Amino acid sequence: MKLFEPLAIGSMVIPNRIMVPAMVTRLSGEDGFVNAAISDRYASYAAGGAGLVVVEAMAVHHSNAGPLLRISDDKYIPGLAGLVRRVHEASGTKVVPQIIHFMKVARSGWRQTVDTLAPQEIEAIVEQFGDAVRRAREAGFDGAELHAAHGYTLASFMSRANRRRGEYGGDSLEGRLRLIGRVMENVRRKAGTDFPVCIRIDAEEFIRDGYTVEESRLIALRLAQLGFGYVSLSVGGKFEDAIHKPGEVLHAYSGYSGERAMPGAWYPPMVHVHLAEEIRRFVRARGYVVPIAVAGKISDPDDAEAVVAGGKADIVAIARGLLADPAWPDKVKNGERDRIVRCDYCNYCKDLDGAHKEVICYLWPKGAREAPAGGPRAPVPQWGADGGGLRVELKPGGAMLRWGKATGGVAHYDIYRAEGGGAVRVIDGVKANQWTDSSILGGLRYRYYVRACDAYGGTSLPSNSVQALPPAPGA
Amino acid sequence: MKLFEPLAIGSMVIPNRIMVPAMVTRLSGEDGFVNAAISDRYASYAAGGAGLVVVEAMAVHHSNAGPLLRISDDKYIPGLAGLVRRVHEASGTKVVPQIIHFMKVARSGWRQTVDTLAPQEIEAIVEQFGDAVRRAREAGFDGAELHAAHGYTLASFMSRANRRRGEYGGDSLEGRLRLIGRVMENVRRKAGTDFPVCIRIDAEEFIRDGYTVEESRLIALRLAQLGFGYVSLSVGGKFEDAIHKPGEVLHAYSGYSGERAMPGAWYPPMVHVHLAEEIRRFVRARGYVVPIAVAGKISDPDDAEAVVAGGKADIVAIARGLLADPAWPDKVKNGERDRIVRCDYCNYCKDLDGAHKEVICYLWPKGAREAPAGGPRAPVPQWGADGGGLRVELKPGGAMLRWGKATGGVAHYDIYRAEGGGAVRVIDGVKANQWTDSSILGGLRYRYYVRACDAYGGTSLPSNSVQALPPAPGA
Repeated sequence: MKLFEPLAIGSMVIPNRIMVPAMVTRLSGEDGFVNAAISDRYASYAAGGAGLVVVEAMAVHHSNAGPLLRISDDKYIPGLAGLVRRVHEASGTKVVPQIIHFMKVARSGWRQTVDTLAPQEIEAIVEQFGDAVRRAREAGFDGAELHAAHGYTLASFMSRANRRRGEYGGDSLEGRLRLIGRVMENVRRKAGTDFPVCIRIDAEEFIRDGYTVEESRLIALRLAQLGFGYVSLSVGGKFEDAIHKPGEVLHAYSGYSGERAMPGAWYPPMVHVHLAEEIRRFVRARGYVVPIAVAGKISDPDDAEAVVAGGKADIVAIARGLLADPAWPDKVKNGERDRIVRCDYCNYCKDLDGAHKEVICYLWPKGAREAPAGGPRAPVPQWGADGGGLRVELKPGGAMLRWGKATGGVAHYDIYRAEGGGAVRVIDGVKANQWTDSSILGGLRYRYYVRACDAYGGTSLPSNSVQALPPAPGA
Repeated sequence: MKLFEPLAIGSMVIPNRIMVPAMVTRLSGEDGFVNAAISDRYASYAAGGAGLVVVEAMAVHHSNAGPLLRISDDKYIPGLAGLVRRVHEASGTKVVPQIIHFMKVARSGWRQTVDTLAPQEIEAIVEQFGDAVRRAREAGFDGAELHAAHGYTLASFMSRANRRRGEYGGDSLEGRLRLIGRVMENVRRKAGTDFPVCIRIDAEEFIRDGYTVEESRLIALRLAQLGFGYVSLSVGGKFEDAIHKPGEVLHAYSGYSGERAMPGAWYPPMVHVHLAEEIRRFVRARGYVVPIAVAGKISDPDDAEAVVAGGKADIVAIARGLLADPAWPDKVKNGERDRIVRCDYCNYCKDLDGAHKEVICYLWPKGAREAPAGGPRAPVPQWGADGGGLRVELKPGGAMLRWGKATGGVAHYDIYRAEGGGAVRVIDGVKANQWTDSSILGGLRYRYYVRACDAYGGTSLPSNSVQALPPAPGA
């Protein structure tokens, strides 16, 4: 598979094309230091065989923000070095930190915007990024990623919503790109020209008057001109459409653009790949081969392979899928796809983040702070003599499925469905023994089966399969 | 060209694949009757050769809404019949009315939602649609289109944001589709089974928790099962994210989803065609060949042809492009593409609608209430001896172009640009003799020329062409 071919990002060669993009864990304390829980989280991705792990955003400055990693002082270097060591000891996985500057937000709903920054504040940001990347290098990271996506400072300058005027102003594309150019210059000066410095941007802002791929392809081209190691694409996550809850600070993932950043179960797979494809085509046609990474509901191994083999992107970034099962890469590589704990995009993790709680996966065993590693402590789930005893009943609200309990270490049940002659897909993962499909359409034939899954990727055989044919209109 | 092949929509055969989708004109009075200005507007599309004209939304009920056409009483039939006659006299263009039910909105920002409707109110809607389509038939329309897109009643039932529970409830897909099934049944009963009844829906809602193509393809399949003549696709235009201006009623096109419904110059061409392609593929794979129409920045003739010839959709809906130049179809057919008055997606028309003013095109001559028809009253624009005297100067804000005045009946100037080896595109249409390109990227070569255009599609030769090579970073 092309997915498992190595890729050079400057002097950093990643062993395969699978990236864990930055995901907030909410495992850190307010002190900003790496702790054991955080190191465990990232070591697990390395143990599972990802090509590149991007460690969650760490701040270049000291601004208040609740629990958040920091890289704003040399005192943080030893802790970060320890994290890097843990990752490198686990496998050949490369690791980079995501480095962030953010502006102030208040409980009143007020937030600082780029048009209010004084020139010396902009100079400070330039210096802070340079120092932060120098520290990343000293900590032993294989490179660094600057966070220029979503609602954060670098992104807000690049945004079409940049209301500043003049040198760093939103009135011209070059004005919007001036800060990132100056930041990269300072980073090179302080951290060396041979250290891979990468970046994450929005491929589309998904806000009113926000930029689209018409401009993100130019932004990506500029980033290639500046020598960034890869351009990783997310979308949305902006403050402009964030929903203010009284008494709480604005959360960049609470509005529509935030939904796009972490699209739920009702979005199609690979929902933003077409944006990456256009950006990559545009940049390559102008002579740059900077690798493009893309995220957004890529978790089926065949989908991931199609993205890289089809030249739509060079790296697939799998966030929620690898949170659910950090061993996804090794399982795919070793032909054990059936043992993947499959993310069903329930967005329990997104909700936890929004509530400022430790981010875990709904599919993990009760009480677990990490995806379970090692072998199961109970036999692999098994159906009774009735093969699961799955039955289906048409109700006004949809097709109601019920099945028997499997034996063994059952953590959840995966529901498989084929709709009207289409392919079989996992449509949900549930902990109960019944589930209603409320999205069926009369006139189509539905086929279902269920597998009982343990927390380690062990699954029962498929249950008996059942069919439902809800009546067509007028029938 | 496939674009000019006829297409059967039930018993209505449209002479080509070009549709004028429903566009509010704000030309009607509060009385709801057709007037001369409205008839003129629609006759002009027919004279220009569109295959199908959809007349702006007309209400099935009497609810207050300011100026709006009505089809809520038999007294409106003669006026509508007059409009139909005007269209039919002009050409072989077919004409259908868009038929709408909307709920109440108030200046306070309050709006009625589907979960508050009493059963008898739902029954009234069912009856009203049946009566309205019967009237459309009596008025001589070739068919009818039900408005089930954007923020209106039929769409709000279909929406993922439907908060109702039970029979017509948002808790199941069938619940969301129940009303449209009952409406179609009543329409068939009152207007006959041989009258083409078509529909417009959102291919994607583009709001938080809104539906995506994962469901719109099922919705389209249901509409095919119900026997709708075509499924015309728009997107967004929802009230959920509308921006409330104090003292004004909510406008469904004021938020992000409204922007998607009429994407501006900063969106890529054909921005929603991929949604149509997936919907058409899905429906066809299940045995239905209902024609699919798609809208959204399709106005280049090659783009339009690629959509229908490539099987991405069966009909291209061109709203703003045909507002700018109703003769677009005939000009393309007759090999006069250079004479098209090209929409530059400035959204002046959208802004007028938002301000409740008569909708005209910025490119029309000053004071015109319609696109000018007939020959020009002045010579075709011509450059002086300097061939336009176009010059370019790099400024901090971008590339500043200046050129000389052309002689003849100049209405505006079209700016043509090729960016970094890409194709030449019209990037703006302006009335002044200078223009600044604020979206250039240093390191790319830009080539520009200008054509002077009259209001009738006559254009000067291209001006002299100029190049700009803004410096790459670090250069």
